Amino acid sequence: MLNPFFKNNGPILISKIIMTLDIKLEDIDQNILVSDIKDLSSSKVDDITFYHSKKYKDFANKTKASFCITSYVLKNDLPKSCKPLIVENVLLSTSLITSIFYPDALHDDFDDSAKNANETKFLNKVQFGKNVLIGKNVSIGSNCKIGNNTIIEKNVSIGNNCSIGSNTILRNTLVKNNVKILDNCVIGKHGFGFFPLKDKNLRYPHIGIVLIDDNCEIGCGSTIDRGSMSNTVIGKNVYLDNQIHIAHNVKIGENTIIAGQVGIAGSSIIGNNVKIGGQAGISGHLSIGNNVEIGGGSGVINSIPDNSKVMGYPAKKIRDFIRSNK
Amino acid sequence: MLNPFFKNNGPILISKIIMTLDIKLEDIDQNILVSDIKDLSSSKVDDITFYHSKKYKDFANKTKASFCITSYVLKNDLPKSCKPLIVENVLLSTSLITSIFYPDALHDDFDDSAKNANETKFLNKVQFGKNVLIGKNVSIGSNCKIGNNTIIEKNVSIGNNCSIGSNTILRNTLVKNNVKILDNCVIGKHGFGFFPLKDKNLRYPHIGIVLIDDNCEIGCGSTIDRGSMSNTVIGKNVYLDNQIHIAHNVKIGENTIIAGQVGIAGSSIIGNNVKIGGQAGISGHLSIGNNVEIGGGSGVINSIPDNSKVMGYPAKKIRDFIRSNK
Amino acid sequence: MLNPFFKNNGPILISKIIMTLDIKLEDIDQNILVSDIKDLSSSKVDDITFYHSKKYKDFANKTKASFCITSYVLKNDLPKSCKPLIVENVLLSTSLITSIFYPDALHDDFDDSAKNANETKFLNKVQFGKNVLIGKNVSIGSNCKIGNNTIIEKNVSIGNNCSIGSNTILRNTLVKNNVKILDNCVIGKHGFGFFPLKDKNLRYPHIGIVLIDDNCEIGCGSTIDRGSMSNTVIGKNVYLDNQIHIAHNVKIGENTIIAGQVGIAGSSIIGNNVKIGGQAGISGHLSIGNNVEIGGGSGVINSIPDNSKVMGYPAKKIRDFIRSNK
Repeated sequence: MLNPFFKNNGPILISKIIMTLDIKLEDIDQNILVSDIKDLSSSKVDDITFYHSKKYKDFANKTKASFCITSYVLKNDLPKSCKPLIVENVLLSTSLITSIFYPDALHDDFDDSAKNANETKFLNKVQFGKNVLIGKNVSIGSNCKIGNNTIIEKNVSIGNNCSIGSNTILRNTLVKNNVKILDNCVIGKHGFGFFPLKDKNLRYPHIGIVLIDDNCEIGCGSTIDRGSMSNTVIGKNVYLDNQIHIAHNVKIGENTIIAGQVGIAGSSIIGNNVKIGGQAGISGHLSIGNNVEIGGGSGVINSIPDNSKVMGYPAKKIRDFIRSNK
Repeated sequence: MLNPFFKNNGPILISKIIMTLDIKLEDIDQNILVSDIKDLSSSKVDDITFYHSKKYKDFANKTKASFCITSYVLKNDLPKSCKPLIVENVLLSTSLITSIFYPDALHDDFDDSAKNANETKFLNKVQFGKNVLIGKNVSIGSNCKIGNNTIIEKNVSIGNNCSIGSNTILRNTLVKNNVKILDNCVIGKHGFGFFPLKDKNLRYPHIGIVLIDDNCEIGCGSTIDRGSMSNTVIGKNVYLDNQIHIAHNVKIGENTIIAGQVGIAGSSIIGNNVKIGGQAGISGHLSIGNNVEIGGGSGVINSIPDNSKVMGYPAKKIRDFIRSNK
Repeated sequence: MLNPFFKNNGPILISKIIMTLDIKLEDIDQNILVSDIKDLSSSKVDDITFYHSKKYKDFANKTKASFCITSYVLKNDLPKSCKPLIVENVLLSTSLITSIFYPDALHDDFDDSAKNANETKFLNKVQFGKNVLIGKNVSIGSNCKIGNNTIIEKNVSIGNNCSIGSNTILRNTLVKNNVKILDNCVIGKHGFGFFPLKDKNLRYPHIGIVLIDDNCEIGCGSTIDRGSMSNTVIGKNVYLDNQIHIAHNVKIGENTIIAGQVGIAGSSIIGNNVKIGGQAGISGHLSIGNNVEIGGGSGVINSIPDNSKVMGYPAKKIRDFIRSNK
């Protein structure tokens, strides 16, 4: 499910990978073919992986990959079956190699394959507005509506009974059934992920997708970015209000309700039945438990356990927030 | 004025209403016809109303409606002329019955009645951009401009000397004279109002409109939702900056100025001559007095009296904000 | 560079200027022609300037302008070569006179000169999507892509190797090389600048442009307003995430990175290598130094020196923020 859309350019010769990384690795057969790049635990014997932090030591010990981009300090955590490729900046090098496997996932220029819906196989199957465009590798279920000027770019699958508004753009997105996406949204573009370099930042590929599960509603003017090495997931029956921003790799649980202008930074995980008030912001890489309530305007900078009610910036227990503002 | 646009499906047999609510009410004539659903004070003898909180006891005492959706505890506040329909969840049941009277106000799929402006009666009367679409029940005054790709969906009335930008969407909206609405706005869609239910939330109808009075300016990328049981109102000479969100039922007084990225939650009332700084947020159901100044970034969670200057989160008197942050 | 786009209506007779200001000034030749309106230091002998605050006394002393809109209190700071035009409200009067020189810079109705790209000289030189519109006075370099429904309104210059997304609107904007502007942006519209007057606010002209330097990326749904009397500048290799608002006259230094939903109010200056977290807000007329880091959700209401790390609302040193929230 991670990556149903991006074409893997592999297999790629290990000699090309070595050359790209500008390193030396002479005691191996330069003609070995590498199939794919994956994380430590999902790699298979034909793959290359990466290991950049002691946090993942247990996974490193057990990886099945034959090659691993890593640092001098970390290389000894790898099993003998896995050859280390020692580099200075592991993530930067990983990004370079991912770009070779998935060159299409690097940039998001407009989809010039998109055609007017009237010229596609969907002509008599979907209720279209005017000037709707549809790209390659798109599927649309029964009883769907797609509003005026909306662009379904390449790599989109839409289920049954969905209603997409006008002026909305989708790409690299899997929409399940009974979903409503309102006007002026942009869904499935790459996230704000890159290596900051002087004069010219370096983008890394985003090979994840956006998955929007059954019965969701996405408000006007919202943006949901697709994942980098994992997917961005909106769970069943999640309702988003207008002007919300969901960054790459975020996962939102079922039945969660999010009010207007909320922003959720990259890779945070939101539980089930969560309620988030308007304009709240959630920092990246946090975990918000089930049944949590976050007051409007809060700035959440720490993970929150199940069943908590928080408010403020930084967000604290609502009791403490009220007390400290008497 | 509440609802000039949505078609009332009534009159409806009281027997159908009783059946929909899944209740018993046998001591009445099942053939009585009910004209409309309204609030306690505006209902007439042919109407059904609803009563869900002791706050409205005085209105309940005097309602002229013949029927009222209410709870067992509240039913005795109604006059003898008003037959109580006892339900478990008054608002949920009210929503169900409103949906029967106003089925069009429940969902906001794109308006497939919209035609290219060149094919409408406005062809030589309005200055259009390319690819402008216009729906049913639209009127446009003299000396108006409507930008490229803009969609005037059904139920819109625009006065004289108005300038609508490009890529903007209007529906269920009454725009008076000399109004400017800039690019990429969405105005008049239903608000973020629904009953949260496990697996499948239940939307309630939004039968209100958006009213934008003379001389207003609405900035790029803003969203203004129409009201549920009342209207969303933008008073005369109100200026909104870019990326502002105004939720359903909000009323904004005259000469008020609101800077970029502000959000105002549902049903709050803002006075005249109010100034609101960028990114401030105002919670729902509050009352902000006349001549109030709210600092940028503030989170307003309580009502504010006339002539106050506030700042902070939670917003407090600006003097206190400065003192507590020395 | 200030104003390569707006046509100067001058020279204008001083008698017309005097009449517009509704003042008397009889001891001069009423037939003198005034070329332009500029600030104190850039004015030449044929120009009119304005002086409204003691802050600018040094510039007033040395202005080369022959005329200056100013107040009774300030007039003695001007050299003898500069004739004061005494008014009650200097900025309001300056706005009136600027409107006479630059009437096109006052309002931003949609550009009705824009034509379908297929009918322009760019047909075989630029890779266009469907329904792209291009206005007058537009230049586009080599190897550029412009997405579906995007409108390049009048007065836009785009360099080489640029990628503009879909549903985006540009006007009065100079884009250099290797720039990416994603979907649903509005760039180059006038800022939120006007004189608040009862019943009918008075807009002042925005004669500045937006300048976006090499290697920038602008995220989806962002708005960047053009300057009023100076330019809005986005420096080299600046990356903006989604839903960001940059107000008029803001200058952003090189290599700065700004996360989602940030807002920067008018005339603030941001240094080089600055990092701004999501949803942070920066008040107007501030100066943020080089290498500053601003935490997500911060509300910055004071200028910040180089190399600082701040967080909170109001933003303070990150150390102090953590201590005060233990």
